[in-house]
Amino acid sequence: MSELDLDSILAFAIKLALEAGEKIKAGQENRFASESASQDEKVNSVDLVTEVDKAVEKFIVEKISEAYPDHKFIGEESYDGQQITDEPTWIGSPIDGTTNFIHGFPMVCTSIGLTVKGVPVVGVIYNPFLDQLYSAAKGRGAYLNQKQKLPITGRIKPLASLGQALIATEYGSERSPPALPRKIRAFEKLTAHTDVGGKMVHALRSLGSAAINIALVASGGLDMYWEVGCWPWDVTAGICILYEAGGAAFGGKTSPSTGDVDAGLLAGRKYLLVRGIAPTQSETTLQVQQRFAKEFYDCTEDIDAK
Amino acid sequence: MSELDLDSILAFAIKLALEAGEKIKAGQENRFASESASQDEKVNSVDLVTEVDKAVEKFIVEKISEAYPDHKFIGEESYDGQQITDEPTWIGSPIDGTTNFIHGFPMVCTSIGLTVKGVPVVGVIYNPFLDQLYSAAKGRGAYLNQKQKLPITGRIKPLASLGQALIATEYGSERSPPALPRKIRAFEKLTAHTDVGGKMVHALRSLGSAAINIALVASGGLDMYWEVGCWPWDVTAGICILYEAGGAAFGGKTSPSTGDVDAGLLAGRKYLLVRGIAPTQSETTLQVQQRFAKEFYDCTEDIDAK
Repeated sequence: MSELDLDSILAFAIKLALEAGEKIKAGQENRFASESASQDEKVNSVDLVTEVDKAVEKFIVEKISEAYPDHKFIGEESYDGQQITDEPTWIGSPIDGTTNFIHGFPMVCTSIGLTVKGVPVVGVIYNPFLDQLYSAAKGRGAYLNQKQKLPITGRIKPLASLGQALIATEYGSERSPPALPRKIRAFEKLTAHTDVGGKMVHALRSLGSAAINIALVASGGLDMYWEVGCWPWDVTAGICILYEAGGAAFGGKTSPSTGDVDAGLLAGRKYLLVRGIAPTQSETTLQVQQRFAKEFYDCTEDIDAK
Repeated sequence: MSELDLDSILAFAIKLALEAGEKIKAGQENRFASESASQDEKVNSVDLVTEVDKAVEKFIVEKISEAYPDHKFIGEESYDGQQITDEPTWIGSPIDGTTNFIHGFPMVCTSIGLTVKGVPVVGVIYNPFLDQLYSAAKGRGAYLNQKQKLPITGRIKPLASLGQALIATEYGSERSPPALPRKIRAFEKLTAHTDVGGKMVHALRSLGSAAINIALVASGGLDMYWEVGCWPWDVTAGICILYEAGGAAFGGKTSPSTGDVDAGLLAGRKYLLVRGIAPTQSETTLQVQQRFAKEFYDCTEDIDAK
């Protein structure tokens, strides 16, 4: 395998995401103009897919096959159990935030990442409704709209305590016990007043798009994002962007939390994403991130991804 | 009181919100460039205000006083118990989403409304970070960025069941019992699987800005937004926009739910906002909205606003 030209691959991925975004916007206009927009259920009444998801994934796959015929592809709508190998592998979601898309809630994006040896080396997330493009390539930094370097604060901020954190969490589509009650108990522990044993975090946010949540951790606008149950195509591009902005990704509560990204972490279905945090006098950035990851997980119970 | 020219007042309010937005963006850049950005606590560690909130409210008050010297003003940072009277009264929040603003999470807006006889007649909500402007004047429709009529679907959609709803909820700043556990029980009832007695709504969203949540109900992107504890300056502009888009606003669980807006509803601290919903064969739009409001409130307990 010859050395990959990440600059040209990044430019290709950005162009592809922008084109996919145009198709998503056009697809939504068509759906709203039609009385009979189809909305298929994947697993249950809250796990949804549309014809637009399928058409946009087909478009993305075709463009990648033309440009990089020897690369592999793992995508949300065509997934049939492919593993992430060492080969250059594109991992993407045509529409991340399909429920939002169906409703017209503007937190919707295309997420396209490339891994080599299981490590994300290019990541692009584009929200066509808000015209927000997050992009990164390994060693080249992460950017919003190709001009504002991430994090948007210009430097990595400190984080004094978990109580000062703004954290994204989602209810997800697994709504039966034990998963949902365990999640909800964690939400209560995180938000409750310290007088009753809570962490009283600044707030929890739920946008309904894993990729957008991760992009906002990379930007520094969120301090953390906790997820159970999403897939490599929801997180690969975001994790590339996050690392280039100084952030870290950890696995599930019971997984080792080394901060390393590999195929196992990408496919692990459980994620805790932490923004870049300024080192302290006695800790490196990674040590501070690991400390907050541990304190966060101490507020949760283990949940299996279905 | 002579007849108000709502068209020119709307143009004034839009210009004012755009100018306030520029000040908010500049204020955030200055804060991020400074090591010593001040962040005052209002009531507790999650109820925050910044110097930028105060400076932007001062700017808004001055501009309104110049243009409409006989109008009253009720604002977040200068509030000292003023009532909403029949007089033309501007009700505004310089920064709605201050916690987001402090973190750099882009769900931040200026919200400016005008009431006459307790009824909102002009409303403008501007998010300078995403350049999203929602505006309306009574009888003139509601718009996104002054060109896309709301709802964005182009027509009022039906809503088949509460289980198909996308609903905004927030944890808020009151984090002690009984308020927080009651909210969290409602979140669980709404999201849990029908097999265990839940409503299994499509999803809950939390953006951390009441005004933006209401604007998104007006757009049709959210079906409902439930809030306890916010203030007239968080909701007045949004309710004007919502009504012009066919939506309705209801008071708390134990309040009459007539769908009428008056000073009592605006100041009532408890709100359930419902998007325009297509009438059924046997119900008007308002009757459908009332039915969903009742079904929603049946999932909640009453919570006092502090």
